[in-house]
Order: sequence, then C-alpha cells, then structure tokens
Amino acid sequence: MRIDINCDMAESFGAYSIGQDEAIMGNITSANIACGFHGGDPSVISRMVRLAVAANVAVGAHPGLPDLVGFGRRDMNVTPEEIENLVLYQVAAVAGIAAVEGVRLQHVKPHGALYHMAVRDPELARAIARAVAKFDSSLILLGFGGSSLITEGEAAGLRVVVEAFADRGYEPDGKLVPREKAGALIHDADEVVNRVLQIVREGSVCATDGSTILQPAETICVHSDTTGSAELTARLRRGLEVAGVDVVPMGSTG
Amino acid sequence: MRIDINCDMAESFGAYSIGQDEAIMGNITSANIACGFHGGDPSVISRMVRLAVAANVAVGAHPGLPDLVGFGRRDMNVTPEEIENLVLYQVAAVAGIAAVEGVRLQHVKPHGALYHMAVRDPELARAIARAVAKFDSSLILLGFGGSSLITEGEAAGLRVVVEAFADRGYEPDGKLVPREKAGALIHDADEVVNRVLQIVREGSVCATDGSTILQPAETICVHSDTTGSAELTARLRRGLEVAGVDVVPMGSTG
Amino acid sequence: MRIDINCDMAESFGAYSIGQDEAIMGNITSANIACGFHGGDPSVISRMVRLAVAANVAVGAHPGLPDLVGFGRRDMNVTPEEIENLVLYQVAAVAGIAAVEGVRLQHVKPHGALYHMAVRDPELARAIARAVAKFDSSLILLGFGGSSLITEGEAAGLRVVVEAFADRGYEPDGKLVPREKAGALIHDADEVVNRVLQIVREGSVCATDGSTILQPAETICVHSDTTGSAELTARLRRGLEVAGVDVVPMGSTG
Amino acid sequence: MRIDINCDMAESFGAYSIGQDEAIMGNITSANIACGFHGGDPSVISRMVRLAVAANVAVGAHPGLPDLVGFGRRDMNVTPEEIENLVLYQVAAVAGIAAVEGVRLQHVKPHGALYHMAVRDPELARAIARAVAKFDSSLILLGFGGSSLITEGEAAGLRVVVEAFADRGYEPDGKLVPREKAGALIHDADEVVNRVLQIVREGSVCATDGSTILQPAETICVHSDTTGSAELTARLRRGLEVAGVDVVPMGSTG
Repeated sequence: MRIDINCDMAESFGAYSIGQDEAIMGNITSANIACGFHGGDPSVISRMVRLAVAANVAVGAHPGLPDLVGFGRRDMNVTPEEIENLVLYQVAAVAGIAAVEGVRLQHVKPHGALYHMAVRDPELARAIARAVAKFDSSLILLGFGGSSLITEGEAAGLRVVVEAFADRGYEPDGKLVPREKAGALIHDADEVVNRVLQIVREGSVCATDGSTILQPAETICVHSDTTGSAELTARLRRGLEVAGVDVVPMGSTG
Repeated sequence: MRIDINCDMAESFGAYSIGQDEAIMGNITSANIACGFHGGDPSVISRMVRLAVAANVAVGAHPGLPDLVGFGRRDMNVTPEEIENLVLYQVAAVAGIAAVEGVRLQHVKPHGALYHMAVRDPELARAIARAVAKFDSSLILLGFGGSSLITEGEAAGLRVVVEAFADRGYEPDGKLVPREKAGALIHDADEVVNRVLQIVREGSVCATDGSTILQPAETICVHSDTTGSAELTARLRRGLEVAGVDVVPMGSTG
Repeated sequence: MRIDINCDMAESFGAYSIGQDEAIMGNITSANIACGFHGGDPSVISRMVRLAVAANVAVGAHPGLPDLVGFGRRDMNVTPEEIENLVLYQVAAVAGIAAVEGVRLQHVKPHGALYHMAVRDPELARAIARAVAKFDSSLILLGFGGSSLITEGEAAGLRVVVEAFADRGYEPDGKLVPREKAGALIHDADEVVNRVLQIVREGSVCATDGSTILQPAETICVHSDTTGSAELTARLRRGLEVAGVDVVPMGSTG
Repeated sequence: MRIDINCDMAESFGAYSIGQDEAIMGNITSANIACGFHGGDPSVISRMVRLAVAANVAVGAHPGLPDLVGFGRRDMNVTPEEIENLVLYQVAAVAGIAAVEGVRLQHVKPHGALYHMAVRDPELARAIARAVAKFDSSLILLGFGGSSLITEGEAAGLRVVVEAFADRGYEPDGKLVPREKAGALIHDADEVVNRVLQIVREGSVCATDGSTILQPAETICVHSDTTGSAELTARLRRGLEVAGVDVVPMGSTG
C-alpha cells in the first residue's frame, strides 16, 4: 500500500508570504511549485525547490493563469493556444530551476481556475496535456478523478495520476462539496486520516449522504495556506505510516 | 571570414506590437528572444521561436529586468541573488520553448538595463554568468567588449562572444556614443556595411575623433525597433555576403 | 441635429504604442482615456489628457479589467464588489489627472470585456454604475443601446448615453455582427458617413438582412487602432459637418 | 502638546496579506494608504479607507514605485516626469476612494525607495511636490526632517510635516541607523514611549553616541509589518496619552 502527498508550494511573492511551506515540507512527498503567474517569483521558486530537494520531496510544476491579484482563482476566457503556451513557459521555467538543483521535474498540476476550467473543458485540458507532453513526455499530469485532465492527459500519452482531497467532503456524484456549504471541510485530524486510509485501502470515500463512492487516488492533496494545515499534514503522514502505508512520491511508483 | 548578426526579438506583448521581427528575421543569424519580463509573452515567444527555427536562425534568450512599463531599460537596485534567479527562470523558460520546437538554445544576451548594469558591475555580471553556467554550460554569453559580462562569463567557464554595434558610433575609449549626442547613430547603409567589414576584417572601428580603435567582434547587433532597421539589416547582410564574409550563427563556429 | 464622436485613447503602455491617438484626436469630440489596467500608464494618460484638452475634446475614463497581456478583452470571473472597486479606482485616477489639466471628467465608458460583460450582466452593470455614481453623479455612463449598462446607469441616477458604431454591421436584432463574420466591418467611408447620418437623422440603421432597425444614439464610436481609422474618422467628421450636423461633445448637450 | 501617529496601511494585495492593519488602526491617527503600485489593490484600498474612516483615522496616500515584486523598496532610475505622473495617478486614485467614503485626503507620504530617493534627490522631490500641489494644494506632504522632500514641498507651497521614527535609532548626524547595524531597532516599549515623549516635548532625540540631537517632528511613524508592532503602537498611544499628549491627526492642527 502506497500513497503520495502533494501540496501547493512557492506561492509567496516578493515581500508577500503565503502558505506554510517550511513547516509542511517535511511531511509531504510531492511539491507543486508555483511558476510565477498566479504566485511565486524566481527567488521564491528557487528557494522552495532547494527546500524540496533537501527534504527529498519530489518537485512538480504548478502553472496558473496570469492573474496575480486574483491568485489565479478567477476563470478567464483564455484560448487553448494561449493556455498551451503559458503552461509550456511556466513548466519549462520551473523544470530548469529544478535541473539546476539536480532533480528532474516529476509532475505538473495546474492551479486554481486553470485546473477547474480544464477539469470541465476537454479542449483546455488537451492544450495543457499537449504542452506537458511536448515539453517532456515522461512528466506525470495530476488531475481530478474522471475529469478531462485525466482523459486528455492519457490521450496525450502521459502518465496521469488522480488526486483525492484529504480534508474535503465529497458529494454522492464524486464532486467536492463547494466551500461555502456545510461539510466542505473536514477539520478533525483522525477523521482525515481514516478517510485517507479508506481511499488508500479501498479506493473509496464516504460521501455526504453516507453512501460509499469509488475514489481511487494515487496522491492526496493537502493545503499549506489553511489554519492548522501543517499540523494536520503531520498527523496525516504519521497516521498513514503507523497504518503501514508507504508514503512515497508518485514518481517512485507506477 | 565569418560574422554573426544578432537582433532582439519577441519583445511584443499581448496586443502590443514592437519591432519588425518578421521583416528582419530573414537577414539575421541569431535571435535574442525576450523572455517575458521586460517584454514578450508566452505566445509571442513561441511564435518567434518557430519563426526563427523556420528561418534557420539560432535562438538565444534575452532576459531582462521585471519592469514591463519601463521595457527593462531602467536601472533597478536588484541584488545579485535576485539577478541570478530571474535570469535562470527566464533562460529556462525560453530554452524549454526552443526545445519543444526542436532546437537547443545557442546563447544568452541580457537586455537593456540588465546588460548595462552587468557591463559595469562585476558582481551582477557574475550572477548572470552563474545562472547561465548552472543551467547549461554550453551556452554562449554575449556581451560588450572588455566588459564585466565578458570577463565574468569566461571566469564561469562559458564561451563568451563579443558583439559590436552596426549602426552606433564609438568613442575613442571604445564606449558607444550616448544616444543623445551627435554621431550616436549611423544612418547611411553603405557606411554601416563598411564599418562592419572593417570590424570583421581588421577587428577595428573608426572612432568619433577619427582614430582607429580595436573592436574585434564575433557578432554584430542590429535593432528591430528603429525606422528602416529591416532594410538596413538586409543591406548589411547583402553587403557582407558580397564582400565574401560568411554570415553564420555564432554557435556554428568557435 | 447633433452628435458626439467617441474614441478609445491612451491605450499605449511604456515603450509600446497602440492606436493613432494624435492623428485621430482632431476629429473626435470625446476621448475615452484608458486608465492603466488593460492599457495606459500614468505618463501616457497625462499626455493624452493634455492632448485632448488642447484639442477641445472632452475627457472620459475608460476603465478595464486587470489584464494587460489580454488587453482587457478576456472575460474574467470578477465579483461585482471587485468590479465596483476597480472601476472607482481607475475613474478616480483619470479624473484627478483631468482636474490637474483643468477639465472635469465628462463620462465613463467601460472597456472591452468589462463593457461586454456589463452589457449582459445586470449585476456587473450595477456595480459599474454604483462606482460611477458614488464618485461623481454628474458623470455620463456610455453603453450599448438596450443593454444593462444603460438600464442600470439610469437606475443609479446617472445620465446615460447610447453609442452606435460607425463602421460595424448590425444584426436584425440590434446586435453587432461578430467580427469573424462577413459584414462585420464597413470599410467604405461614404457608406460609413451615410449610415451615421441615418442614425443621427432617423435614429435607425440598416441591418444585415436589409431591414431598418431602431438605433438611436447620441455618440458614435470610432476606433483608433484599425488601419485607416484616422482617415475614416476625418471623413466621417467632414461628412457630418457638410450635412449640417453639429459634432459636439455629449456633455455639451442633454 | 500634540502629536500624530502615522502608519503604512493597505499594502496587502489580492490573496496576499501583509501588515496588521486591523489591529493597529485603533491606535494611530493617520493612515498612509498604499495606492496599488508597490502594494494594495482597489479592493484592499477601499476596505482600509473604510476602516480608517470608521476609526476616525485621517487618510493619506502612500504612492510607490511600480515594482510589486520588490514592494517598491528598490531604487529605480525613473525620470522626474514619470515620477510626477505616477504620483499624481496614485494620489488621485486614493483621493477618489476617500471622497466616496466621505473624507478628504489629508496627506501624501511617498513609500520605500520613492521616499528615500526623494529624500536625497531634490529633482525627484520637486516632481513629487509638484504632483501633489497640482492635484490639491491643501494636502500635507510628509517627509524626513531636513530632507529634499521637506524643502521642495515648502517651495511648492505645500504644508510639510516632518516625521520621526518611534522604534528606530538615530545617528549623531540625524540619519537613521541602517537596519543591518546594531541599534537600528528599539524593541523596548517603555524606551520607545520615552523617546517619543522627548521628541514631542523637547524636539530632540538621543543619538547612538549618547548625544542629544534636534529632531522636531509633528508625526511619529510606526510600522504595521513588524512583529509586535500592534502591541507596541498600543503602548505608545497609551504612554503618550497618560503623559498628557494629545494624539490627533496632523491635519487637525497647524
């Protein structure tokens, strides 16, 4: 039994600090490194890649929309061609920084609105997959289970990895409970551990209506910018290891 | 007898067009591709790299300061560490785009204030050279003759290439005549051709006081954003070829 | 018989020049001054406001989305509250610059995607109208006939002015022919003059199917960034004056 | 005996939070509101202006260089004309937002590198003073004692106000101890209160060599982005009031 834990990182910008990258790095296995468009700047990116390498955490690129003031969270009407170009640019930049620090990029995970738009829109997902595959066909593309990111990533010949969310509730149809609704966030650490264990062991999760739904995943997404996330991640990591689960980067398996 | 002709390219941004990249591409041998900080965006960069590849023009990175509104032409008090990081980020981004188009990056030429600051300041030049050498030690670093860029590039183990300016006057001490002074720009095409021929054949140029000064150079810089530059470049190229000079990318020699 | 001619202006940015502001200024009566978000920078804005004042052209604010690389032309999922704040900020900045040059702001016309989103979405239109009315309730809000911008502007107590497009074809339902379809653009200057005269005299326009549709308008929008626009605008202005139409700023009437 | 306490505010940006604006607002009398160039965005600015108005804190503009990633702290080689335009733009934007919230702008305090460059360079200080005076000659210009900002502000006909720094050491020549040197920062709250009381009562401060130097000031600058600053400011406010000093906005006096 194996699982990867991924987390968005390097989203600070200049004098602006966001997330708890240092505190959380020791307990994850894959770092999604912001690439400078929705967050991150060259100095932050370099520092966080070094931190990841030192912690034996695999490095991925986390490209976003060119919307710093919106933190890449606002849908934008960008053409597939622009998406392909801006993903390629961002992935290449972080891959180069990783190479200088002695590691190959492991994966790509789109950020925020870029992720959500690509989950819904096959044409955008295809543009992302095309950029990644053209740049380095050995890269893993991360996405939501059953989404366009996964199907288009596979169609582009990439290894795709489905992620599940440690601290988020699921609707019976497999979607996440929207953040503004009750049950969106799970705060109890033991419950988080148990849910992840069920995902790892049985490939299923308990939905808001009590039903059990299929939710196989090779990586668990944790967040670095919510209160208590560093502690929650530490407890998740311990809980998984105590239960005999190997917590290892997704790229070391498959 | 050989010479390279280099030109800044891909400095357009979104709806904003600058330079005459298409018109000039056919007559140069090395394109300095803007990297998105002082100019250029991922779509412009991709398009211009494709155009260069199609025209058999070698591709280089042209990183600049993070100052779009100032077009990277204003000195900024940036630390060497920041310079190293922002050069690495930009060079990696363009190198990745070039790789997707099937070519290796040939060279790096800093832009505007980054170039001029590094010409004067060995510490900044060292930061640039370090970023380039760490990323790919086979890259050529372009710089002004006798400047810190050249000495620090050599010290970092890079091949360095000195450029001369086709249409600029030189002071007796080897510096360019400042743009606001008489004699700064040479507009006559025949004179430009003859000056470049003297650089190629004798490694010297005629300074403003009539004296002949040493000015060996392996590449000639032309500009794409001045009136008549496309025609001037075409005449320079023809003049050089008629005179029996091989006009070839710097990376094909040395 | 009276009409105003409005044109987007001051959309250049740093070293990047767009539009033919100088050439067109003499033939318009209202300048929509970009505010720095989709285009324009403080120096460009100041210069163009001075140019407008010198040419007796009324000054308006032309706020846009914070999307320089997309020139404010891409829909973004911005909340009404953010829209209100970013419109207020931009209008205030340009109003202050106009005041320093000795003129009051005459009007506000949203740019690009902000305009089109507000045409369709009453809530966004309301946010824009609220920002304008709170800042200065004597400002005129420009919009497309029958759109949310007009109805919400009126509801906010603003004077609203409907614009028609000199060189664009109209569908039978009153919408503009999309730019990618035949008949979208009218290039013949005489036809442009005649269409505008029909709008001024009869408040109607001939649609693509030959039908005559109501299209009353107090101002005619011309563009500064299309080929031949300066000449077309000059001919429009002359044609209107020859026909006895007073071409005057919208703020001097009503 | 009267004094004003000023603090930089509204420097957060989108998802990025910086400073402790809410915690500190209750104990200051003048808020220097960031204007969107070095920090701040229209929504942050609007919210902080409202917070200031609710707390009876006077509102000023805090314009900075166009360098978000550098937080406006890096010297840039900007021309006086550009400085004049970008100060005018920023001041006008914040003044308009303040007007919508029912208050007049009280003052202008340049930020970071813009402040420090103007302290040293009379031409830049003149450009700032010109922008402020043209926009609203009743505005107060804040600056360092004996600096170009003060002399050029006076020459432009503005009321100028000298600020002293509550928690910074002074060299015998009246300059601040550089941040990297010992004695740069004073952490003890009682000492801070006593130093400010000496400034208020005697117009002098104790320099690093033990000498007493003249340091008259009408306002005390506190910072919102250093650890413990909210508590330090609260203690300063109480200490001043207990000592019988009126802590009131600078604009309510003079």
